[in-house]
Amino acid sequence: MRTADELRSLVADAVRELEPAPELGSLAEPLRYAVGGKLIRPVLCLATGEALGVDAEEALPAALAVELVHSFSLVHDDLPALDDDDVRRGKPTVHAEFGERTAILTGDALLAEAFRLVAAYDRAEVVRELAHATLRMIGGQQLDFEGAAARDDVHRLKTAALFEAPVACALVLAGAPESARGPWTRFATELGLLFQVVDDILDGDGFVDERGAEGARALADAHAARAHALLEELDVDTSVLETIVDVLATRTV
Amino acid sequence: MRTADELRSLVADAVRELEPAPELGSLAEPLRYAVGGKLIRPVLCLATGEALGVDAEEALPAALAVELVHSFSLVHDDLPALDDDDVRRGKPTVHAEFGERTAILTGDALLAEAFRLVAAYDRAEVVRELAHATLRMIGGQQLDFEGAAARDDVHRLKTAALFEAPVACALVLAGAPESARGPWTRFATELGLLFQVVDDILDGDGFVDERGAEGARALADAHAARAHALLEELDVDTSVLETIVDVLATRTV
Repeated sequence: MRTADELRSLVADAVRELEPAPELGSLAEPLRYAVGGKLIRPVLCLATGEALGVDAEEALPAALAVELVHSFSLVHDDLPALDDDDVRRGKPTVHAEFGERTAILTGDALLAEAFRLVAAYDRAEVVRELAHATLRMIGGQQLDFEGAAARDDVHRLKTAALFEAPVACALVLAGAPESARGPWTRFATELGLLFQVVDDILDGDGFVDERGAEGARALADAHAARAHALLEELDVDTSVLETIVDVLATRTV
Repeated sequence: MRTADELRSLVADAVRELEPAPELGSLAEPLRYAVGGKLIRPVLCLATGEALGVDAEEALPAALAVELVHSFSLVHDDLPALDDDDVRRGKPTVHAEFGERTAILTGDALLAEAFRLVAAYDRAEVVRELAHATLRMIGGQQLDFEGAAARDDVHRLKTAALFEAPVACALVLAGAPESARGPWTRFATELGLLFQVVDDILDGDGFVDERGAEGARALADAHAARAHALLEELDVDTSVLETIVDVLATRTV
């Protein structure tokens, strides 16, 4: 069983070697530019897969697909008509670097590439999980913009969906029966919410505005504790997933 | 075997009854607003399917999925950063009606919905065809904006891809072997190019700018003749597809 760091290296290599469809022509450059960062979601996919006996190499296309959906959402989110952000991960956002028109098409291409990747499996269920997560994420974006829903409800769609998808894809690849998926999905939801609360703590907004610094920290700790408790229910070696919880709970970037 | 008009009614009913994923929330309205028009691509899918013995009802999800990809491309194409069009099909474009932010998310949601639809089949090959066509179409958009490629090359990607996809999906559903697909694909390409040339004739731009009115008409007729010749090669009843060629060649809107 590989460590979280080893899995992350595997994903980082695959991202470096990513070959967009040749038909995309000059969009390949902004597409590759847009993918990177912490790669938490694909590592989560591989770690879940390994815990269930799925080889990391087998889970890799699904893992990458989830990361491409995540990247697509960031590229479109950063656009002037949405969050209007010019910097991400310490470098210009796609529209700041390549222009708005290219950024819109790059986001579109990332989403289509994600589905190309999962379509390589001969199991449409992986595609269904990815489509479902993408739709939930987009719905969460819209809910967020409307501004009337509770922060927690927004993030159960907007953020948690893309933590649930990598776990769900790994479960499908492992052939896990529906009846065994409940604790896994709840674990993924907790992890997604943990990620979001810590994000807000690091940025000093969102849940911090809502509950203060101590309240947000307590919320993060509660999500981490529930994630650990859910892992304990599972009858497999979840040591790498436990590390991932701890890393997300204590991250400083 | 149903007529082209009967197939069109079937598609129009399905479009009217389209139920976007509930998680999309208030995006359901602009999403439904964006879908409509001539519905040529889904009718082509159903007609190809029927010629090959696939029930129209079975082909309907794939047919709709192609139409959603087409709608997605129009919504994003019309955005201020791309073609900046305020009117389509005689009504305000999605961004003119609902705002730019909603239009970007609506396009995204249409694309994800398209993949949700094809993922309902237990054959990942349908998903592969749709992903491939989407990537070609996006690549064609980019090539078009760059302005350096030949018009014909641009439209083989940008326009023909979404005529090839409905035919390809129907072939997959019919279980047609790879070896039998060549003439079908070439037929779909001719039909896509015919569509585009006639579009330019009706708008007085594109191929008309390039070749004059008579030159564009001759080109349209040549594509129509090749489409008919390819249908003649096929050992099935292609009468409905022949009607579709004629309708596209002689349309006035």
